[in-house]
Amino acid sequence: MKLVNAIVQDKDATKLANAFVKAKIQATRLATSGGFLRSGNTTFIIAIDEERVEEVLQIIKDVSQKRKQFMVPPIGVEGERTGAFPVEIEVGGATVFTQTIDDFYQF
Amino acid sequence: MKLVNAIVQDKDATKLANAFVKAKIQATRLATSGGFLRSGNTTFIIAIDEERVEEVLQIIKDVSQKRKQFMVPPIGVEGERTGAFPVEIEVGGATVFTQTIDDFYQF
Amino acid sequence: MKLVNAIVQDKDATKLANAFVKAKIQATRLATSGGFLRSGNTTFIIAIDEERVEEVLQIIKDVSQKRKQFMVPPIGVEGERTGAFPVEIEVGGATVFTQTIDDFYQF
Ligand code: NI
Ligand code: NI
Ligand code: NI
Repeated sequence: MKLVNAIVQDKDATKLANAFVKAKIQATRLATSGGFLRSGNTTFIIAIDEERVEEVLQIIKDVSQKRKQFMVPPIGVEGERTGAFPVEIEVGGATVFTQTIDDFYQF
Repeated sequence: MKLVNAIVQDKDATKLANAFVKAKIQATRLATSGGFLRSGNTTFIIAIDEERVEEVLQIIKDVSQKRKQFMVPPIGVEGERTGAFPVEIEVGGATVFTQTIDDFYQF
Repeated sequence: MKLVNAIVQDKDATKLANAFVKAKIQATRLATSGGFLRSGNTTFIIAIDEERVEEVLQIIKDVSQKRKQFMVPPIGVEGERTGAFPVEIEVGGATVFTQTIDDFYQF
């Protein structure tokens, strides 16, 4: 068996948890923070058979990979809009690593 | 050394933490959630010598394995009791896996 | 790659997080508790190239290793001071272990 560790942005965590449930993948969710660019994140750990690791990786990638999003800039400090048009920003992203599980038990 | 990871139901977590203390086993407790059947869970990680892994597993099994429990069914939405007799439900359960630790330090 | 797991006292966690940021080391912070002597602790996990493991260990040691500190004893229950002079106590300490990462991805 393998352990898949996935650190994703908080904004993607609930959608990812739902995708795991739908695929009948048992993921444990840890409240985490930090990493120097991403303040709010969530870590999932998934103990799974080798044969399903690719499937797990694909779900994580589908839901939470880095992508562009349009955002309307907030109003400036003096009340004037800093820009009338939406700007493109980057959101999401996942750091994922796998480890070997030696023995697995269910009691 | 080995790392033992144990995911148990919240209701068993305090009893398990106490059992580890009594056995002088240093367990670190993580606030976790999820897994598609168990909403409230707690994860323990225990870094320990190979020779004590069996003992750790036995403690986890003793405290938190799946077992039957009698429960009085809650009162129905319209105020009538849905059943006069206690019913048997399954509680507890633990998912446990071990991993290899390469190097261990105490500073 | 390696995974460095570091369990430190809560009182050292913010200083350690800042030291990782300064060294451009991406550390994920987990809210943890327990271990039979240290009630309030924080766990960091750091996925990093083998070549930088020593650097990570040195940072953890520098910030959070066990050291002596002088503390003025609290006032006794009956209002009298239990001692007029500061006493030396031990603070800090880190439990650290490394593990092998099989595969690493960034999406
Ligand atoms: Ni396997
Ligand atoms: Ni060993
Ligand atoms: Ni490597």
